[in-house]
Amino acid sequence: MSSTQFSKITLRSRPVADIIPSENFQTEHASLSSLVPGAKQVLVKIGETMRAGGLGVVVKAGEGSKFAKGDTVYGTPGWAEYAVVDDKTCTKIEPPKGTDALDFLNTLGMPGMTAYFGLHDIGRIKKGETLVVSGAAGAVGSLVCQLGKRLGCKVIAIAGSPDKCEWLETDLGVDKALNYKSPTFYKEWKELGYLDVYFDNVGGDILDFALTRLNRDARIVLCGAISQYNSAKPAGLTAYLNLISQRASITGFVVFDFAARYHEAIADIGAGVADGSIKRKFHIVDGLAQAPEALKMLFTGGNTGKLVVKVSDGSIAKL
Amino acid sequence: MSSTQFSKITLRSRPVADIIPSENFQTEHASLSSLVPGAKQVLVKIGETMRAGGLGVVVKAGEGSKFAKGDTVYGTPGWAEYAVVDDKTCTKIEPPKGTDALDFLNTLGMPGMTAYFGLHDIGRIKKGETLVVSGAAGAVGSLVCQLGKRLGCKVIAIAGSPDKCEWLETDLGVDKALNYKSPTFYKEWKELGYLDVYFDNVGGDILDFALTRLNRDARIVLCGAISQYNSAKPAGLTAYLNLISQRASITGFVVFDFAARYHEAIADIGAGVADGSIKRKFHIVDGLAQAPEALKMLFTGGNTGKLVVKVSDGSIAKL
Repeated sequence: MSSTQFSKITLRSRPVADIIPSENFQTEHASLSSLVPGAKQVLVKIGETMRAGGLGVVVKAGEGSKFAKGDTVYGTPGWAEYAVVDDKTCTKIEPPKGTDALDFLNTLGMPGMTAYFGLHDIGRIKKGETLVVSGAAGAVGSLVCQLGKRLGCKVIAIAGSPDKCEWLETDLGVDKALNYKSPTFYKEWKELGYLDVYFDNVGGDILDFALTRLNRDARIVLCGAISQYNSAKPAGLTAYLNLISQRASITGFVVFDFAARYHEAIADIGAGVADGSIKRKFHIVDGLAQAPEALKMLFTGGNTGKLVVKVSDGSIAKL
Repeated sequence: MSSTQFSKITLRSRPVADIIPSENFQTEHASLSSLVPGAKQVLVKIGETMRAGGLGVVVKAGEGSKFAKGDTVYGTPGWAEYAVVDDKTCTKIEPPKGTDALDFLNTLGMPGMTAYFGLHDIGRIKKGETLVVSGAAGAVGSLVCQLGKRLGCKVIAIAGSPDKCEWLETDLGVDKALNYKSPTFYKEWKELGYLDVYFDNVGGDILDFALTRLNRDARIVLCGAISQYNSAKPAGLTAYLNLISQRASITGFVVFDFAARYHEAIADIGAGVADGSIKRKFHIVDGLAQAPEALKMLFTGGNTGKLVVKVSDGSIAKL
């Protein structure tokens, strides 16, 4: 395969505010023969990839690598068809019965772990409580909603289109889904009463309003703030004094801190996926060249479910 | 004492932003004979009072009251020389050895309990950590600083004048006191590194800056936001995304939730007061008529130490 060319996408310039694909990214072509795995490295052909990680198949293992040709691994190979990666940055994927490798980009991967430990360990959710989830149609949010319903909570989902809201109510069974783009959004939310746990994926004005909707001892789980990442100046939270009167908290977390306990979540969520009680949705974009445009979707709300880019055909693409 | 007149201060109008004593308050005179304690009530002559509570001496006990004439009680009698109060809203004050009744308006009262449970239970402070305290020259803040030093923490105090800063460094032994009115305040703070616990009494811009100074797993204790209470529109927090990367939290609390454990704090702090290792300072304003002007001080930073109003002479005033 010495003369084979492959493509990868590299950063040309950092986005200032919104992403402009043609200005911020460029596609490069390289010779596959230039990629030689060293000690404890593997050369991976990438099947599905996304912003923070991807699935690939090992095509060549370097000296002393713990992986073998044909293994499916999860790692952070970046936006490329092939990549040499260190053993220690990869995990061999062995899907539990009734699940498949692609689930490791979603409910059994980083989004799943984020939903699980965020809701249970940071949010300390309890049966019967009221849970509000923003970014609810995304990979993390949609699992948080389902974990909440499974536990017997009242779940209010916030998403950005009537289609997403219908999916959340009809397919995922949330008690109420609110479209934050609706002119009556805040009024409708207010009518739904107060909340015990707010699982926040968006930040900004919606987080600020949530601060006025707190029950006593409410917990706000700060998971992400997609509305703010591309803002030159983030919107300020003004309603934080409610944290005092309501004895409430805002807590941030990073999922990697729970790595030693991923197996717990994988077993629990995997069982739900296998028996059909936990649903997952993929939004698949075809072809590496589409990756920059796809990334924009994360910020504009274009995707429903886990956004993945299908980089190449191969064993993974059959999933 | 049927024809005796006494005075009390009542609210004429709610302040819109800053307090205007002559517009917001009025002094009324009433006949003492109109105050008759009913069942399980006492008539109290008030010695020292303040915004949230006061000390008084029981001058008459109603039927079935658990208090007796001459008892010193803590309650919330309001700005009046005499008041009829329910038994259940009062606590008999029995100062531990080496302390006195007045301490129950300060280190052994609500400010003390707030400092103690806020720092230990909400802040989960540990030996060797870096503690930053705003409103550090106030009753709560100055005790938080001392509890932190006693535990072996690095303590950075924030106050509003060179005199207060000198008191904090020289008398209370904090590692560094910063004057937030200094033009180099933020620069100086930045040079002192990152923090583990931020005990916040002020809110606003100082809280927002603290969000950029967090060590991993930092805890922000939201105790008060004196800078914001009189603002028509509070300043927004913009740096809250740091909570995610630093796995940090902001938690509000209300001291009354710890009422069942006040005795723990009173024993611990009382021992420190008795042996001189915990210092307390009072800012005494003489005469009930001064109460509205004194209240303004809380918002303008005029007081150092616990602000109390001496309402009348009597057993309490001798303390």
